[in-house]
Amino acid sequence: MNLTLEQIARITGARLKGDGKTVITALCGLDSPKEGALSYAAKIDKPEALANLNAAALIVPVAAENMDLPFKGNLLYAENPDWAFTLLLRAADTLNKDIKPGVDARAAVSPGAKLGKNVFIGANAVVEDGAVIGDNTIIYPNVYIGRNVQIGQNCVLYPGAAVREECILKNKVILQPGAVIGSDGFGYIFHNGRHEKIPQIGNVILEDDVEIGANATIDRAKINSTIIGANTKIDNLVQIGHNVKTGAACVIVSQAGIAGSTELGNGVIVAGQAGINGHIKIGDGAAIGPQAGVMSDVQAHAKLMGSPALEAGAFMRSYAIFKKMPELYKELMAIKKKFKFFG
Amino acid sequence: MNLTLEQIARITGARLKGDGKTVITALCGLDSPKEGALSYAAKIDKPEALANLNAAALIVPVAAENMDLPFKGNLLYAENPDWAFTLLLRAADTLNKDIKPGVDARAAVSPGAKLGKNVFIGANAVVEDGAVIGDNTIIYPNVYIGRNVQIGQNCVLYPGAAVREECILKNKVILQPGAVIGSDGFGYIFHNGRHEKIPQIGNVILEDDVEIGANATIDRAKINSTIIGANTKIDNLVQIGHNVKTGAACVIVSQAGIAGSTELGNGVIVAGQAGINGHIKIGDGAAIGPQAGVMSDVQAHAKLMGSPALEAGAFMRSYAIFKKMPELYKELMAIKKKFKFFG
Amino acid sequence: MNLTLEQIARITGARLKGDGKTVITALCGLDSPKEGALSYAAKIDKPEALANLNAAALIVPVAAENMDLPFKGNLLYAENPDWAFTLLLRAADTLNKDIKPGVDARAAVSPGAKLGKNVFIGANAVVEDGAVIGDNTIIYPNVYIGRNVQIGQNCVLYPGAAVREECILKNKVILQPGAVIGSDGFGYIFHNGRHEKIPQIGNVILEDDVEIGANATIDRAKINSTIIGANTKIDNLVQIGHNVKTGAACVIVSQAGIAGSTELGNGVIVAGQAGINGHIKIGDGAAIGPQAGVMSDVQAHAKLMGSPALEAGAFMRSYAIFKKMPELYKELMAIKKKFKFFG
Repeated sequence: MNLTLEQIARITGARLKGDGKTVITALCGLDSPKEGALSYAAKIDKPEALANLNAAALIVPVAAENMDLPFKGNLLYAENPDWAFTLLLRAADTLNKDIKPGVDARAAVSPGAKLGKNVFIGANAVVEDGAVIGDNTIIYPNVYIGRNVQIGQNCVLYPGAAVREECILKNKVILQPGAVIGSDGFGYIFHNGRHEKIPQIGNVILEDDVEIGANATIDRAKINSTIIGANTKIDNLVQIGHNVKTGAACVIVSQAGIAGSTELGNGVIVAGQAGINGHIKIGDGAAIGPQAGVMSDVQAHAKLMGSPALEAGAFMRSYAIFKKMPELYKELMAIKKKFKFFG
Repeated sequence: MNLTLEQIARITGARLKGDGKTVITALCGLDSPKEGALSYAAKIDKPEALANLNAAALIVPVAAENMDLPFKGNLLYAENPDWAFTLLLRAADTLNKDIKPGVDARAAVSPGAKLGKNVFIGANAVVEDGAVIGDNTIIYPNVYIGRNVQIGQNCVLYPGAAVREECILKNKVILQPGAVIGSDGFGYIFHNGRHEKIPQIGNVILEDDVEIGANATIDRAKINSTIIGANTKIDNLVQIGHNVKTGAACVIVSQAGIAGSTELGNGVIVAGQAGINGHIKIGDGAAIGPQAGVMSDVQAHAKLMGSPALEAGAFMRSYAIFKKMPELYKELMAIKKKFKFFG
Repeated sequence: MNLTLEQIARITGARLKGDGKTVITALCGLDSPKEGALSYAAKIDKPEALANLNAAALIVPVAAENMDLPFKGNLLYAENPDWAFTLLLRAADTLNKDIKPGVDARAAVSPGAKLGKNVFIGANAVVEDGAVIGDNTIIYPNVYIGRNVQIGQNCVLYPGAAVREECILKNKVILQPGAVIGSDGFGYIFHNGRHEKIPQIGNVILEDDVEIGANATIDRAKINSTIIGANTKIDNLVQIGHNVKTGAACVIVSQAGIAGSTELGNGVIVAGQAGINGHIKIGDGAAIGPQAGVMSDVQAHAKLMGSPALEAGAFMRSYAIFKKMPELYKELMAIKKKFKFFG
């Protein structure tokens, strides 16, 4: 990174108090300051802690404009320092901007595939017949794109991601390394004493601006589509079963699993390692706690914990007493003993 | 898909009541009917709901032959509509049937590998020295087949699957994308203050008709073999530790994990996110509930829930009271207080 | 394998009682003996069981030198039979020793990458510009090495592993198949009604002698580094969030997850499927039980169980009473009923 504070003020919309010619070469966290770098504070809890902060510049909230902060470097006042810092991280993140469009000579692109403008396809990537890839999309090495797959514009598929036949990725979709889109749903019928495979002839649709984490797996539908709604973010090692549908802007954290045909509303949060049963509905804005096990429908905006899951407050009240159970047991036994004497 | 109802009757063995010349172009679920498509009903719970079903044909149980169903389209009476529909899904599933045998010019197949008849090996797949691949097996692009691996007939290995050296896949084995067979078991010895690696020189054997899910991992044995029994089905992101042995026709659902040297009998069901300790035995037909944590041997046909796992009924009875604990606590405290007064 | 007992005595440092010219062709476990093979017993619990052991040689503890063991084959007395057997497994494990250094003609190695001496790079592996690979390192087929990645000496990267840009692997690091190093941390900011991606511009550092399991995922830091300490061993399908730091010699078992910015001390053990919250500290030598859910800081050498996690003994005492709850409930109701009568 190599930006003057003037440029940074322009990028972030923050008001600069300091020297606009100062060059910033790195970004840093408050807990790991670096000379010459820029950091940010979402809130000013302990202004005195800024006295010894060894950084060249600091983004603070506009609410701090009235405070006499003891920081020795340059200050930038932003409406939302988190967002301002995010904009700078975007400026600093050059990885995909540095890529020059083109198809690597070692990529295996079917003559029956259609590529948009400014597409990049890396070495040893495979694009099968009938696949369509939109403008500005980046396909890293070792990615697999199956037959008739449709990929929109401005997508990034990192190394080793695999998209099986007929699946659809709309625009601005990101697949982290090893993500699998369109693996067969886990469907068998027990017939004549054997598990017989039920073909899974549907597909997966990832709407605009979906991100899928590393080694996460999204199964194709038995028929029709497994659908991940726009702006939904799915973390590493998450499992999404066949025919699941999620609404928009859901967040599904690492190692969570959602069984087949379940539907999530909009803005649902599923915390890490939570498991959600198949064929149920989770209402808008519900929050499923870490490691929770959800067995049945969940109302909008409910918060759940535990396995099987309960309303979060009820779970925590019960769990608080669970912790005391050895002493309560003693008390119950003491009462019982005395009681027999009385009784 | 493009089949007449006459053809469909022949494929499924169902009795047709309707026009045998009608052409069916798609399959659909009852919850998502499509004009011109065929659906199925495993049971007839609400016959009146069929009055408005917008589909060309419907498979129903033979038990419905006496019912006067209000469905306007063609009817097919089958002994087992689920199975009849599965047969049609198989007819509709053309993906692997469309593949023409041959070795892609961009595959890296060792001259020391032996390929059977009608084998397909896709672009950028790698087959190492000494590997043997049976007739009609399909190796998708970007698959890795290690040294001396033996793969039987009619297997399908989807993109990015990796089979490390010396492992054995018998016939009709399916690996979903990213499945790893034969990674090192997690074995270390703490020696002179460090974890020292214990080489894992055994292998993995997948018996006939085993399917392994996307990004699932099956570790090779320390010595001898990790064995997955015939017709066992393993879902995405499952972990199988070194020297595990499963019986035939087990079902291991997504994100479950089985630690080293544990043995499963036949027909064991392990639900999603369950964990099974190492060096224990799970009897035939046992059912391990979702997120259960199994610490010790399990008898045949037992049903378990909870972490640590208990007999399922006992767990649910205890959990029912767990939910009431805050009020029970109040009652106990009230009794205690009064009791002190009396006592 | 093909070693005389004399050679085996030399390799293991064990004292041989038997025929040094006997050739051993295989290693075996006590539970699966093989004619002509060598096994080991870490302890002699049931000496009589050795009478029928069908193996050519057995490593036993030096403590057994005074015992008259009924084993008919050759004996080797070792200070630590486990370690002696590990040394033999290392002698028997020829896989990576058999590899001849060199770059496969089908590998895509950037002219801007620097390779040390005796490096092996397999078919369809990709090494990007600026990457540096140390002496004797083995890169299997289908591996991806991103821009400016630094890899030390004597590392082994198995098929399909992916290391994204700027990450650092020091010496003797092992990546099992499908391991992902440097995927983006799961970071978003909710801005104007949408989840906006926060670029993750840091990297991952794997210190000396780290091993990462199959399909495990180690996210890159938002800024700075996610760090896995020397000699730490991470099992299959583990998730490590952005900016996590682990100490030396930790053991993180399959399917466990550690959320962002959490710090583990040295020698921490995290059992299978456990989950650890973000932004907390786990002290040296702490042991987190299987499926435990750790929400807050953990003291050194603490042992935890349960979700949310409690001190292990306290959890087990409470859980023991959880099992009895249906009968305790009846007793409480009986007391309550009688009490009302009295009260």
